[in-house]
Amino acid sequence: MRVAACGLCHTDLHYLDHGVPTFKTAPVILGHECSGTVEELGPEVVGVNPGQRVLLPAVFTCGQCHQCRRGRENICVSMKMLGNHVNGAYAQWVVAPARELMNLTDDLPLEESCIIADALTTPYHAVVRRGDVRPGDRVLVLGCGGVGLGVVQMARAAGAYVAAVDIQDEKLALAEKLGAVVCLNSLKEDNLSKAVARQLGGMPQVCFEAIGNPATLTQAMGAVEAGGRVVVVGYCEHDVPIKASRIMFRELEVVGSLGCRPVDYPRVIEMVRRGTIQLAPLVSHRFPLESIHEGLEMLRQGKLIRGIVVP
Amino acid sequence: MRVAACGLCHTDLHYLDHGVPTFKTAPVILGHECSGTVEELGPEVVGVNPGQRVLLPAVFTCGQCHQCRRGRENICVSMKMLGNHVNGAYAQWVVAPARELMNLTDDLPLEESCIIADALTTPYHAVVRRGDVRPGDRVLVLGCGGVGLGVVQMARAAGAYVAAVDIQDEKLALAEKLGAVVCLNSLKEDNLSKAVARQLGGMPQVCFEAIGNPATLTQAMGAVEAGGRVVVVGYCEHDVPIKASRIMFRELEVVGSLGCRPVDYPRVIEMVRRGTIQLAPLVSHRFPLESIHEGLEMLRQGKLIRGIVVP
Amino acid sequence: MRVAACGLCHTDLHYLDHGVPTFKTAPVILGHECSGTVEELGPEVVGVNPGQRVLLPAVFTCGQCHQCRRGRENICVSMKMLGNHVNGAYAQWVVAPARELMNLTDDLPLEESCIIADALTTPYHAVVRRGDVRPGDRVLVLGCGGVGLGVVQMARAAGAYVAAVDIQDEKLALAEKLGAVVCLNSLKEDNLSKAVARQLGGMPQVCFEAIGNPATLTQAMGAVEAGGRVVVVGYCEHDVPIKASRIMFRELEVVGSLGCRPVDYPRVIEMVRRGTIQLAPLVSHRFPLESIHEGLEMLRQGKLIRGIVVP
Amino acid sequence: MRVAACGLCHTDLHYLDHGVPTFKTAPVILGHECSGTVEELGPEVVGVNPGQRVLLPAVFTCGQCHQCRRGRENICVSMKMLGNHVNGAYAQWVVAPARELMNLTDDLPLEESCIIADALTTPYHAVVRRGDVRPGDRVLVLGCGGVGLGVVQMARAAGAYVAAVDIQDEKLALAEKLGAVVCLNSLKEDNLSKAVARQLGGMPQVCFEAIGNPATLTQAMGAVEAGGRVVVVGYCEHDVPIKASRIMFRELEVVGSLGCRPVDYPRVIEMVRRGTIQLAPLVSHRFPLESIHEGLEMLRQGKLIRGIVVP
Repeated sequence: MRVAACGLCHTDLHYLDHGVPTFKTAPVILGHECSGTVEELGPEVVGVNPGQRVLLPAVFTCGQCHQCRRGRENICVSMKMLGNHVNGAYAQWVVAPARELMNLTDDLPLEESCIIADALTTPYHAVVRRGDVRPGDRVLVLGCGGVGLGVVQMARAAGAYVAAVDIQDEKLALAEKLGAVVCLNSLKEDNLSKAVARQLGGMPQVCFEAIGNPATLTQAMGAVEAGGRVVVVGYCEHDVPIKASRIMFRELEVVGSLGCRPVDYPRVIEMVRRGTIQLAPLVSHRFPLESIHEGLEMLRQGKLIRGIVVP
Repeated sequence: MRVAACGLCHTDLHYLDHGVPTFKTAPVILGHECSGTVEELGPEVVGVNPGQRVLLPAVFTCGQCHQCRRGRENICVSMKMLGNHVNGAYAQWVVAPARELMNLTDDLPLEESCIIADALTTPYHAVVRRGDVRPGDRVLVLGCGGVGLGVVQMARAAGAYVAAVDIQDEKLALAEKLGAVVCLNSLKEDNLSKAVARQLGGMPQVCFEAIGNPATLTQAMGAVEAGGRVVVVGYCEHDVPIKASRIMFRELEVVGSLGCRPVDYPRVIEMVRRGTIQLAPLVSHRFPLESIHEGLEMLRQGKLIRGIVVP
Repeated sequence: MRVAACGLCHTDLHYLDHGVPTFKTAPVILGHECSGTVEELGPEVVGVNPGQRVLLPAVFTCGQCHQCRRGRENICVSMKMLGNHVNGAYAQWVVAPARELMNLTDDLPLEESCIIADALTTPYHAVVRRGDVRPGDRVLVLGCGGVGLGVVQMARAAGAYVAAVDIQDEKLALAEKLGAVVCLNSLKEDNLSKAVARQLGGMPQVCFEAIGNPATLTQAMGAVEAGGRVVVVGYCEHDVPIKASRIMFRELEVVGSLGCRPVDYPRVIEMVRRGTIQLAPLVSHRFPLESIHEGLEMLRQGKLIRGIVVP
Repeated sequence: MRVAACGLCHTDLHYLDHGVPTFKTAPVILGHECSGTVEELGPEVVGVNPGQRVLLPAVFTCGQCHQCRRGRENICVSMKMLGNHVNGAYAQWVVAPARELMNLTDDLPLEESCIIADALTTPYHAVVRRGDVRPGDRVLVLGCGGVGLGVVQMARAAGAYVAAVDIQDEKLALAEKLGAVVCLNSLKEDNLSKAVARQLGGMPQVCFEAIGNPATLTQAMGAVEAGGRVVVVGYCEHDVPIKASRIMFRELEVVGSLGCRPVDYPRVIEMVRRGTIQLAPLVSHRFPLESIHEGLEMLRQGKLIRGIVVP
């Protein structure tokens, strides 16, 4: 596949800066969020044509393990992540199993659509499959980076009322534009839980932790209504001290969310195609492949919503 | 209501020994697990007769709040717990709203049936409503006290294969008698997770923490299969350090379980009546009301499965 | 309660024209969809004030039966419907239990809001609780009367793509305005199933029958994708011949939907208040109480979307 | 694979007697419920050894379509049924994809285990995945043939109380032996619904139609509690007149059930291995391959519970 564009993601910084090892031993090409066109086919491939516009899912699955076969492909026991287990898409070409290709129709922008592969499918899975957000729910999103803003959009598309929280006002401004009805800068709030409940008209039924920070996860646990759900989307390398008694007495549910099932990708693509979900406001920067380190540095400094690399 | 018997529960020790305050300011009569017969009726009560054999639920609900009206009565926002918000049943008589009475048929032993009110309904709720245990599931139960043994029985009644863990061999012997197919003394195992998975034929899909101990909750999180569920049934007053990344990457679900919905009490009573659930092996001791302190002391020392107080 | 307005509903025609008996023996005042202000309080009522703006649910529940207590109040075994079991709101005043009152905030139009009580809550329940519609679902709505158009709006608010079907082009025009992405006049289609699937990009996962017609229910069964769901919202007095083998081989789910749980009314009110759901386009006509027969006649002839009666 | 045994099933009679065509044009070898040993491997097969004891699922799936990938393999859009799309197992050898083989441990009887492949997995799916039967549920099973008796056992294993109905007393005797607490001969009951509710202590929450008869499906619809579920397991070639208004007013759910997901086969095998489900009482007859027509004739006359053919 010829790469059209590949999104820059915080996951890459975990490998580069925080010592998280990739499964493929170095050298490994990073990049797991890419769109492009089919260039050449393997010998037994049918039903795919050169030139076809496609999106790659961030993770390839085995299709044979019990998780895959019970409808949980996103936690496949033999998953292979692009730019982790195998070479990724910060490159001109990338190799992928034909089974995994997702069609992109002509009315979708080929380059920007790359971010669907993680920055929008991950929110779909988190909001719909794990958060079980329903029309009329009050929802809290902690963290308005690429994934957090995707969660804001998705939760709104699911009929919920969203409170977005971040420490950067410009990200909150974008959250508002994307549908959040309450936007709070947590640096300016003495009691975040109370502020959220007051402005949202009640405690949120579902909270998303989209940063990966122990303090934020603690906030989520404190803010959620009894009987409600906290969805852990952000990667947090530290132990988090939780009040087990609060989970018990209030019957909270703390659930993890990892990526997205391949079978749900076409749903997200369709939501973008029909305008239910906006793509353009999320792609804040574009870098040629040779300037990728500049892009990663801006990501590191929190200056990107989503940047894409164009070879 | 004339009390026939009232079960001794660890919850009482929280008030007596660990400084957990009751909602009613002292003096308060403890005891929340009682059976008996209707003695006298309030002025507007219909459909109840003096002499009727009844069970009281441990908690009375308001029936008006949004939790009650959406089918979550057990987390009623105005709940009143017997022997906590109002005087309980370590007494000869106890007062309760007519709405809350549960019928006990004549084929049930009036005294022993008192423990249905917490030691068996709490497991029903934990296993069926919160753990969602299904036929063929592998289940791990950590802690074989009164509630833990109830969870063992219920999970087996739901068609699961249960591994029971405790530090007392005599409790494990009882767990085996009640249907556990694997029994492990955690003091004798180097790697509990591995031992459970090996003997159960795979990692458990659902784990129940029925003690309220940070170390045990950590064990549960480590033992459960990807995509599986940890149910917090035991009361734990301490913070527990959890690996948030494990919740995310393995899409775990950590859910609290509190008591039981009144609407499910008749189900549990019927399961006891038909012999699906055994009552007798759980009632290990019986104390006259004047010896209640002896009973509480044995409970404190872990020598009871379930003791009942008979006035 | 002083009535501000009461909606005209096909249900009334069942009593007037089709021999369906009301539970209260005649004379009975019809009308079950009303808003107004609190006029006078019963002796023990607390937490309600004269002058308060309120909505009445169409059905009052007992709060004591097993359906109520397991979260299924809308199928309460002792339900009392306004304008059926008790006198309704085609009147200047109506009497209701204080427990049932739903608050209407000042930013809601008092008269038009009456239709929330059935024409919008019934769709909420049908779409969210019974249809389980999710973002990205393809949805088919058969029939664009008051309830059908509500289903169109709700399904869209839940993130679905809706195909609306009717035999009147003006109703389809309104469906489109309310968010349907495909509108089909079934009189003009040779093969409705195929047309729906082609224009929606696949067979619908959820179909709503909102008329109560055997032919339409048959269409719904034929149009839905394997593994999909047909929700029966319309009242159909006739037997409907169904292909049981199709239900089995395609694992279809045919589920009924009746009214709405009181606990969900505030959700619908909030959706209207925030503009997620539009009220104004549904209220096509307004009649003074003395012209109610004119309104009923127009309803009979299919000329109303929703008409309201103002005393 | 060398066939050890293959079960005789009513499905075969549909092809032989009722003009249902097989997908493979004749000649086709029937038989879709078989166990045996691996004889020879295809060139690229790994992880399987000659001599291995295995069970074949009745249906092979593609693993690629959206139904397979969302966890609904049993309604795979490209499914291939043994003895229908491809040659089946009324033979000495049968060919199957290596991916589909299910291991049978040495403690399972190789021949009798063949019936797991349909007569026990179909009930597992119907009871657990489609009926959602829970501990304490009241369950009605209409029809006590091979599949119906499997449903009786599975529902009991799930903690339910089962009423079994048939027109043959000897089948009811077997149902009782397998765990039904109520057994009724429908030929001897004036009002089956009432008899079931009276003897079961209430209307059943879940009803299984395991025959494929319009009259029985109508009985199921009439017998089920409000808010309950009717599961269509039996194949019924005729249209069935249903009361749509009953589905609506009582919020019934009528759902189809087809076969079983491959991922659930190991669960059923384990339930048999551990004795939760009994195999032996279901295998009423055994025929050498050359007497298969005798076996089919007895099946036709309703004289078999489950007969197996041994080559």
